[in-house]
Amino acid sequence: MKGLDGVDVLVSEVGPRDGLQSVKSIMPLDFKKAWISAEAAAGVREIEVGSFVPAHVLPQLADTEAVVRHARAIPGLTVAVLVPNLKGAEAAIHAGAQKLTLPVSTSETHSLRNVRRTHAEMIAEAKAIADLVRQQPQDERPSFEGSLSTAFGCTIEGPIPDRTLTQLAEALMDAGCAEVGLSDTSGYATPSEVKRLVRLVRDVVGDAQLTGLHLHNTRGLGLANALAGLEVGVTTLDSSLGGLGGCPFAPGASGNIVTEDLVFMLEGMGFKTGIDLERLIEVRRLLPEWLPQEEAYGFLSEAGLPLGFAARSDVREDKRSTA
Amino acid sequence: MKGLDGVDVLVSEVGPRDGLQSVKSIMPLDFKKAWISAEAAAGVREIEVGSFVPAHVLPQLADTEAVVRHARAIPGLTVAVLVPNLKGAEAAIHAGAQKLTLPVSTSETHSLRNVRRTHAEMIAEAKAIADLVRQQPQDERPSFEGSLSTAFGCTIEGPIPDRTLTQLAEALMDAGCAEVGLSDTSGYATPSEVKRLVRLVRDVVGDAQLTGLHLHNTRGLGLANALAGLEVGVTTLDSSLGGLGGCPFAPGASGNIVTEDLVFMLEGMGFKTGIDLERLIEVRRLLPEWLPQEEAYGFLSEAGLPLGFAARSDVREDKRSTA
Repeated sequence: MKGLDGVDVLVSEVGPRDGLQSVKSIMPLDFKKAWISAEAAAGVREIEVGSFVPAHVLPQLADTEAVVRHARAIPGLTVAVLVPNLKGAEAAIHAGAQKLTLPVSTSETHSLRNVRRTHAEMIAEAKAIADLVRQQPQDERPSFEGSLSTAFGCTIEGPIPDRTLTQLAEALMDAGCAEVGLSDTSGYATPSEVKRLVRLVRDVVGDAQLTGLHLHNTRGLGLANALAGLEVGVTTLDSSLGGLGGCPFAPGASGNIVTEDLVFMLEGMGFKTGIDLERLIEVRRLLPEWLPQEEAYGFLSEAGLPLGFAARSDVREDKRSTA
Repeated sequence: MKGLDGVDVLVSEVGPRDGLQSVKSIMPLDFKKAWISAEAAAGVREIEVGSFVPAHVLPQLADTEAVVRHARAIPGLTVAVLVPNLKGAEAAIHAGAQKLTLPVSTSETHSLRNVRRTHAEMIAEAKAIADLVRQQPQDERPSFEGSLSTAFGCTIEGPIPDRTLTQLAEALMDAGCAEVGLSDTSGYATPSEVKRLVRLVRDVVGDAQLTGLHLHNTRGLGLANALAGLEVGVTTLDSSLGGLGGCPFAPGASGNIVTEDLVFMLEGMGFKTGIDLERLIEVRRLLPEWLPQEEAYGFLSEAGLPLGFAARSDVREDKRSTA
């Protein structure tokens, strides 16, 4: 379902969802709209704009329906949302979301604590959502993905057995997901594990059915893990502007990988992302105004682009070809 | 000259040199000794303990001779120092240093501003040092390496032409260096450039004559670049405990890659470093006591080891083999 549309790697901004759900502040709707519009204008093609969970669980995301409606009006943007269950999927489809992701924790303990559901119950939920998606008119039908969270280990259970991972991946595909992704919820992944588990799951679901990774930078390995993913052909990487979200420790210990740092790495390696880095950095500079109580993070925004580095790949390639 | 001695990757701690030269505080000699002893006890095999530059230039490193003498008494530790010129090399050899590194900026503008020497003058200096080294009794002879700094681009000149890099590498080998290293002084490197330039320079000097990288994390790509280096067979990586040093921007924008984060990545990938990560983290916790005015940095020290991760590779492998 996912079109790369002239880019080599799809950078999927998850800040408005994964970032905002992890901070205490509630960002006003107008700022969310401005953020999403500004990133889209900088060339970001996919944004996870919210999560359809009950407002009392995540008041930060209570306005997700309005955010989806705003984002849907932006040409060329894929509007992704997280859905925890069938009810969330119904609301997401009603609002017009184009991509639904159901997170399924590979750690059953984590799943029970987080959404009070066993693996079997989550697979049943996936099947119900897939059935609902299939009932939608073809031209409005969203894509539906299962995300295997805590795939690289769980803070409660520790390492997850390979067999649990492959069984869940297979079950999600059988339930009707278009593809599955791997999520390093705990920040436990290392580059070799990224490669190994991508290959392991692909052996079960097929290469084209695992193209995306959701990586955290909790132990500093986020971009190294992203590089490992690229090396086994991953083409979608989630990240958050200013590394927003999941900052359970001191400043500097970020949850999400930083969108602007990731795009710098990708563009610096010659991967086309479609994103204008200078414009993205300008958006990044606005983040503290939109969310003054929270600490944004990241390296490129502090250090700036290297001298002689063109911020847009089309410009950079022109230079190269005439050099 | 460099023996890996049962480890797969040599992590060369440069904090006492590169870290301390970049901060305002002057660490008392006793703390330097304690730091070096503690890291060596945690299994670190090589430490760059100082730089033989005039005390008025870097008062933070004025006690390097005493530091070298202390470090030389630690069994199994390779004592490395930086030498800017022949005079520094004489002092280093007199003190008993086992590895001398001469940094040569591939950006001639940077070289002139930094040490007031042209490329030709630096090569002449390298030759004089190599001659001096050769005159030492064989069993006391230090290894001598040329480090190509600003190799991935310069904040004054921008990109460095490939030809400058290969010519300097060749000239350093001809002058008598045992090997050359690449240094990302500006934090401009990307993983693809790491691979490309390692291969480029190796084509000139030979594979065994380029085994080490000195990478900075200024734009957040430090560990991704280290991974790229590993993938082209690099076996020595410089890093600094707590990312100490080179922090010209806000907190979170570190110069050096973080030793404990690097070791976590390496050990987590199955590379033996000889380092006990739990003991290394204990040393890391002492750093703020030794250097209370400076902000240490890093992810693993905040987040801790993953649940179920054994800190020593021998233990970890035992577990795996009996699983």
